[in-house]
Amino acid sequence: MALIVQKFGGTSVGSVERIQHVANRVIQEAERGNQVVVVVSAMGKTTDALVKLASDITDSPSKREMDMLLTTGEQVTISLLTMALQCKGYEATSLTGWQAGIQTEAVHSNARIQHIDTTRIQRQLDSGRIVVVAGFQGCSEDGSITTLGRGGSDTTAVALAAALKAAKCDIYTDVTGVFTTDPRYVEDARKLHSISYDEMLELANLGAGVLHPRAVEFAKNYQVPLEVRSSLENENGTIVEEEVSMEQNLVVRGIAFEDNISRVTIEGLNNELQTLSTIFTALAKEQLNVDIIIQNVTANNRLSISFSIKTVDVEAALAVLKEYKSTLGYTRIEHESGLAKVSIVGSGMISNPGVAAEMFEVLAGEKIEVKMVSTSEIKVSTVVPHADMVKAVETLHVAFELEEQQAVQV
Amino acid sequence: MALIVQKFGGTSVGSVERIQHVANRVIQEAERGNQVVVVVSAMGKTTDALVKLASDITDSPSKREMDMLLTTGEQVTISLLTMALQCKGYEATSLTGWQAGIQTEAVHSNARIQHIDTTRIQRQLDSGRIVVVAGFQGCSEDGSITTLGRGGSDTTAVALAAALKAAKCDIYTDVTGVFTTDPRYVEDARKLHSISYDEMLELANLGAGVLHPRAVEFAKNYQVPLEVRSSLENENGTIVEEEVSMEQNLVVRGIAFEDNISRVTIEGLNNELQTLSTIFTALAKEQLNVDIIIQNVTANNRLSISFSIKTVDVEAALAVLKEYKSTLGYTRIEHESGLAKVSIVGSGMISNPGVAAEMFEVLAGEKIEVKMVSTSEIKVSTVVPHADMVKAVETLHVAFELEEQQAVQV
Repeated sequence: MALIVQKFGGTSVGSVERIQHVANRVIQEAERGNQVVVVVSAMGKTTDALVKLASDITDSPSKREMDMLLTTGEQVTISLLTMALQCKGYEATSLTGWQAGIQTEAVHSNARIQHIDTTRIQRQLDSGRIVVVAGFQGCSEDGSITTLGRGGSDTTAVALAAALKAAKCDIYTDVTGVFTTDPRYVEDARKLHSISYDEMLELANLGAGVLHPRAVEFAKNYQVPLEVRSSLENENGTIVEEEVSMEQNLVVRGIAFEDNISRVTIEGLNNELQTLSTIFTALAKEQLNVDIIIQNVTANNRLSISFSIKTVDVEAALAVLKEYKSTLGYTRIEHESGLAKVSIVGSGMISNPGVAAEMFEVLAGEKIEVKMVSTSEIKVSTVVPHADMVKAVETLHVAFELEEQQAVQV
Repeated sequence: MALIVQKFGGTSVGSVERIQHVANRVIQEAERGNQVVVVVSAMGKTTDALVKLASDITDSPSKREMDMLLTTGEQVTISLLTMALQCKGYEATSLTGWQAGIQTEAVHSNARIQHIDTTRIQRQLDSGRIVVVAGFQGCSEDGSITTLGRGGSDTTAVALAAALKAAKCDIYTDVTGVFTTDPRYVEDARKLHSISYDEMLELANLGAGVLHPRAVEFAKNYQVPLEVRSSLENENGTIVEEEVSMEQNLVVRGIAFEDNISRVTIEGLNNELQTLSTIFTALAKEQLNVDIIIQNVTANNRLSISFSIKTVDVEAALAVLKEYKSTLGYTRIEHESGLAKVSIVGSGMISNPGVAAEMFEVLAGEKIEVKMVSTSEIKVSTVVPHADMVKAVETLHVAFELEEQQAVQV
């Protein structure tokens, strides 16, 4: 008998019918003789509806009250799913975050889990019950309801799997697994049989969207085996684990991409030690997430700094920089929208220094202008014109032979 | 500085606009220099929507999961009202039932409050905050979320007022107070300045509907002064308290009525000790609430029993009685629908034995047939044909001079 944690996101529990369907998936696992802990998100558009209610009251709701409001979403789902399980003849109990012993920092809207007291869940499991836990939420030591921020339900599931020493954590989603690239754009995209935590982390951070990076990090730290799989189709998904056995020699595992990217360049900055931190602290304070950062020293010992940012945030970023003009002493700010980011990811790159060069060569061969570059040990990201995004992905997919690896899996 | 508990029901918080309006009422009280604890229900039709969701899942949801589901309703309201108060510049904190220290029996859907640990509320009040508490809900000692059943938010408000030793508990509703009778039917109906707990209890039980009987009993036990008042109009309501100072000599304080009543008569029953309990235990098991009960011994030592019941429950009651035919050994069951109950209430009746007689005389004078009678120390209820209900109420209102008492209040 193994203990399995299953996580179903908002789309998977988006209607009463889908909740019934999820109940069947849970029962399948229980019928295999396993103990099951199920983590669920709020139903489909519930969170949006609650956010709308709050915004009808005030433009700046307090984070504590937003947490109080939003956590009702998962509470509705856990009760409905538990009813569905009970009505199909299975013993089940729902638990909110605080009932499940999920203790977080005393921070609202983006709390980190500090500790999970699994006593209550364990007692329910020991008495033969399926336990249905509200994702995304916890409780601070002083008894306030908190939320875990974006990807919170993934994090709840992985953290519970770690605390309960579960055999596996299955992340059910609306795709059938992790693909070499987005199959909506590239016909030859192929589902990966397995992927390492680090690769998944890079893909998750790059906007592949199936699994929240925070949850992947958590899984990596506690060595929780994950499987990303479909809540609709009954097929194997993609296993995320430390050792990638079957595809370990591959250089590039996947291609991620993201559009609506802009580049902002600040020229003629004072070349001082504080310049970089001044700029990016000011932007962070306004919740403006900067991605790639490039720094150059030009003639006259002046600095030039470029960064990429979501296009929707450009105006706010320019306003912040204007405020700091006297401190930073720059001569000019210039920006360019209509860009996209295309990244290749693979742990095989560590020992293959030529991969970045090959990527640039492929893009150059298609006359695709590379505006910015950023690299990590297992990733190379480029910023290219939006119009060239899909062509870049398709060409790279072919160049790195991603569509041909299917044979390895069989 | 006094501590005031305010309670706003589902209609009063039925929309974002109304929640803003409630925030203003709360602020008015705070601006008088008072400490304020606000108890709120779920927004308007929220509970119905949640019940619908559950019924789409299963016909027989477990009570524990229904409590888990329904309590999200008040949690939404407390967060929204607290946001509204904060956005108007007031410090406020929302607390769910468990956070407010409301401990109940470990019973679902209809738990009684056992104890309130006011530490957390008191700490918030001491730091100058308005405290917004979710009505209707509590938490059992083992940490399960429970609900208090019908009228639960009234009970929460009164129980908190008692535990916090509040100066007053204001029940805001969609009427401006307690009336001598229903003003929608009787033009001369008049708002009472004050009423005793016992009278309110009789009126509440008789379906006057402004205040739940359980909350009134609680208020009486702990001597919590209540005021029933309008959430829309800014005028004095009706005070419910032990001593009725200004109107204490009145014999009849109010007239309550209710239609859709039926009478069921069982004839030729075995005259045994268990007969009564067999019948009414069987009905109670099916949640069939019987109101007036009349018993007669007829010739041959046979029993005849009549009871009044909501017309909607008649079929179910007849089915239950049919099941027990062999045990009860009756000869015939007969029933009559299209009836209504009209009751006069007033603590002055205790010392006025002629009041019931006067009531019957008034009804006879109008040729209104009295089908059943039930009396308590401060109440006389009659069952009359539905067609005569309003005429009975109007005539009694005049006969007991209820419309003329206005002068006393000024």
